Amino acid sequence: MQLTLAHIGPKPPKSGAKAAFDTLTHLYLERIQPYHPIESQPFRDEPAFLDFLSRQRGRLPAYPILLDSRGKQLDSPALATWLGGRRDEGAQHLVFAVGPADGWSSATLQAIRAQAHLLLSFGAITMAHELARLVLAEQLYRACTILAGHPYHGGH
Amino acid sequence: MQLTLAHIGPKPPKSGAKAAFDTLTHLYLERIQPYHPIESQPFRDEPAFLDFLSRQRGRLPAYPILLDSRGKQLDSPALATWLGGRRDEGAQHLVFAVGPADGWSSATLQAIRAQAHLLLSFGAITMAHELARLVLAEQLYRACTILAGHPYHGGH
Repeated sequence: MQLTLAHIGPKPPKSGAKAAFDTLTHLYLERIQPYHPIESQPFRDEPAFLDFLSRQRGRLPAYPILLDSRGKQLDSPALATWLGGRRDEGAQHLVFAVGPADGWSSATLQAIRAQAHLLLSFGAITMAHELARLVLAEQLYRACTILAGHPYHGGH
Repeated sequence: MQLTLAHIGPKPPKSGAKAAFDTLTHLYLERIQPYHPIESQPFRDEPAFLDFLSRQRGRLPAYPILLDSRGKQLDSPALATWLGGRRDEGAQHLVFAVGPADGWSSATLQAIRAQAHLLLSFGAITMAHELARLVLAEQLYRACTILAGHPYHGGH
């Protein structure tokens, strides 16, 4: 099962705070690799992201998971259970996506509703775009370790 | 109103991933300084943290806010409103604290209940200790900008 960590916005720069967020995000992507192949993919805007999803259908059908504070709130074990459920039903490609700085447009949410998808919330708070991406990467790593019985997960 | 960002655990190392988390956390602390003086304070264990709180009472009475996934979930504007409420009622020192890697002990939660306090949750997910501290720093910065009418806050 291929994973993609998508985000809408410019490629992270090579230096400064946004680069530091990107470096930490990639650290979690490396830790995820032994469990599932995963790649990071930036999109310049929402139509480009939707176009990517539609082009995947002929290859590995892509299942989009959009991070949105209005979405379904799963705790870490529930996210792991959800991920394991998709794996067990033979999903081939999960695309986890962080929206633009001002949130997903209603046009995108409307387009996504036509297919199997998940709106995923990590809680009511609004986080900076690059921080939300880092939290998402950590949660995916955590979910992989929970499914594998690895002792990373614990605490509150 | 003085702010303290406390955490239970060793001082962050000078290099590696944990250092990168610490660097980003300090970037938010610097951004908070124009609004409120804020300092980072590590404690080796929970009793040391409780001892610090009790010693503050003679000086600036400390109001502890413990990050805990079992706590009260506030969205970013609600956290700002809460912070503004404490400021307006003359609170002198707010101590925001991230617990040990395996969560706050019931002894600490019991001890805290004897005074004005808040158990604060950013959602059901469990985050790595150093990531939770970074998210907390960003939320405090965001709360300051919301109260000041600064355009940082927006999106989902």
